[in-house]
Amino acid sequence: MQYSTTEGYLPLREFIAARYWEKRQLRVDPDEILITNGSQQGLDLLGKVLLDADDTVLLERPAYLGAIQAFSAYEPKFASVTLEDDGPAIAELRECLDVHPPKIFYSVPNFQNPSGLSYSAAKREAVGTLCAERPVTLVEDDPYGELRYRGTTLPTLRQYCPTSVLLGSFSKIVAPGLRLGWICAPRRLMDVIVTAKQGVDLHSNYFSQRVVYQHLKDHDLDAHIEKIRELYGRQRDCMVAAIRRHLPAEVKASDPDGGMFLWLKLPAGVSVSRLLKVAIERKVAFVPGSAFFADSEDDSHMRLNFSNSDEARIEEGIRRLGEAIRESGCC
Amino acid sequence: MQYSTTEGYLPLREFIAARYWEKRQLRVDPDEILITNGSQQGLDLLGKVLLDADDTVLLERPAYLGAIQAFSAYEPKFASVTLEDDGPAIAELRECLDVHPPKIFYSVPNFQNPSGLSYSAAKREAVGTLCAERPVTLVEDDPYGELRYRGTTLPTLRQYCPTSVLLGSFSKIVAPGLRLGWICAPRRLMDVIVTAKQGVDLHSNYFSQRVVYQHLKDHDLDAHIEKIRELYGRQRDCMVAAIRRHLPAEVKASDPDGGMFLWLKLPAGVSVSRLLKVAIERKVAFVPGSAFFADSEDDSHMRLNFSNSDEARIEEGIRRLGEAIRESGCC
Repeated sequence: MQYSTTEGYLPLREFIAARYWEKRQLRVDPDEILITNGSQQGLDLLGKVLLDADDTVLLERPAYLGAIQAFSAYEPKFASVTLEDDGPAIAELRECLDVHPPKIFYSVPNFQNPSGLSYSAAKREAVGTLCAERPVTLVEDDPYGELRYRGTTLPTLRQYCPTSVLLGSFSKIVAPGLRLGWICAPRRLMDVIVTAKQGVDLHSNYFSQRVVYQHLKDHDLDAHIEKIRELYGRQRDCMVAAIRRHLPAEVKASDPDGGMFLWLKLPAGVSVSRLLKVAIERKVAFVPGSAFFADSEDDSHMRLNFSNSDEARIEEGIRRLGEAIRESGCC
Repeated sequence: MQYSTTEGYLPLREFIAARYWEKRQLRVDPDEILITNGSQQGLDLLGKVLLDADDTVLLERPAYLGAIQAFSAYEPKFASVTLEDDGPAIAELRECLDVHPPKIFYSVPNFQNPSGLSYSAAKREAVGTLCAERPVTLVEDDPYGELRYRGTTLPTLRQYCPTSVLLGSFSKIVAPGLRLGWICAPRRLMDVIVTAKQGVDLHSNYFSQRVVYQHLKDHDLDAHIEKIRELYGRQRDCMVAAIRRHLPAEVKASDPDGGMFLWLKLPAGVSVSRLLKVAIERKVAFVPGSAFFADSEDDSHMRLNFSNSDEARIEEGIRRLGEAIRESGCC
């Protein structure tokens, strides 16, 4: 198996383009798609081609940790915009874009990691339009878009901002260990990304690209995603119910329509980092929220994942978490 | 297939460590090995963790193009040391290391790309010792080390410089399209590299790591390499003989003991870029040498690859190249 093209296996890129049209009514040319080592590599490549030291990267608050890590290597300044229940605070976003114009606005409109929140239809249009009128590169990261358990699919930001970059991944719908994702970017930016990718690793694993393509041809991806949706959807409901049952009412939890994560805010005066120690003694763990804030301190949030445990373990885990919260004298 | 560890599949790293001991008498702990997307990613990661803008990277002259590309993203200055037939000019190397101390000295001691040249035993010791006594990070790239067609295996630079970084690859001995290579680095540097790799793509393709490991367990790698050696060795001999037969005596060619490349120097007054146009009309191509010089101009060298054509095509290609040289009025 010889070296391959940097852009990736063409039939796989055609599959992705066709699926965007079928599922999202989004016209994308296969030439605007490059296969990456998971969407994480997409973030690194964007940092490499777009960022110089001290450029501003605008994030959601809270923001996906992997994006903070990838961009940090290029030594930018981070700014952030408040994520409300239905997406970014629009007036604040406009001010962020205009006062210290960022090179990148990094956004996760569907079932965000860590918050589980999604943008409403109105906010998608507002965010896309604001960015389309400005020199910022809007980066729309969408690893969870197909994992919706409730409600209907909403438009991508790219529909309102054709210069934006859309990142996708097979990690959540086929397998993470294959490390295959993609960047969908306008031609002019794509040329620069392809050159950067050549310098980084020549091309993504060609063998896995062929294997995944063959798998997608031989199997019904929609049926597989439907199975994941049913399973994760039940686990989501189970975790939400267990939280109501076992956690003090003062704990606020997000109520995501899809994805993998719940985001909890503990009442003022509660230290999540202290709570983590008590929880681990009870053999239950969570991700402290502090890592998801690039430009402010936080010790009151935690992220829970409902996709990787069955219902019995979720119930028991949340019960122990409730005990830990009470034991650490929080509520 | 779930997310895996950033360092890579442990049995594969153990295989690599055991092989270093068996083939090179080099003691490496599996913890000092991280699996990368080809050794090209190793270069990118080293640039990321070691280089700031305007740091100096010391290269061989000529130098491997992929290294120039990978490091360039971090905006260093390039310096270079003359590559003589038996390795770097040692007095010049010492001066380069001391006058503008580089962060990295990038070296390819075995069958270098593009020159085909190798370091002698004496120069390996000299280079390793010089670097061991200085704060420079010696990077020893060794994708071709096992592809020796003549002579005996010589020590790695790492044997004289334990703080050096050694890069390896399955591309030339298993398959390039799998994009699997490795970095072997001292623990302290490895910790930083692992963090950088996490930000870049979490980990290398786990599926391919398992496939390659199973392949290595089920097949005799030594027997496979012996086959490659016989085949490429014959092609090397064929190309060297064809050059003597068909090219003007003024053309100087390297005489590599292994690897994939021959490096030709045309006489003064000959323009390789002009020659390329004439050659392409005769349906024969080569890589102009200019891309392999990061800090000087060159229009008198070309790189030929003898690993990817059979003997009949090699003979005919060199014959046409000879015609093109004469037609362009060079010799």
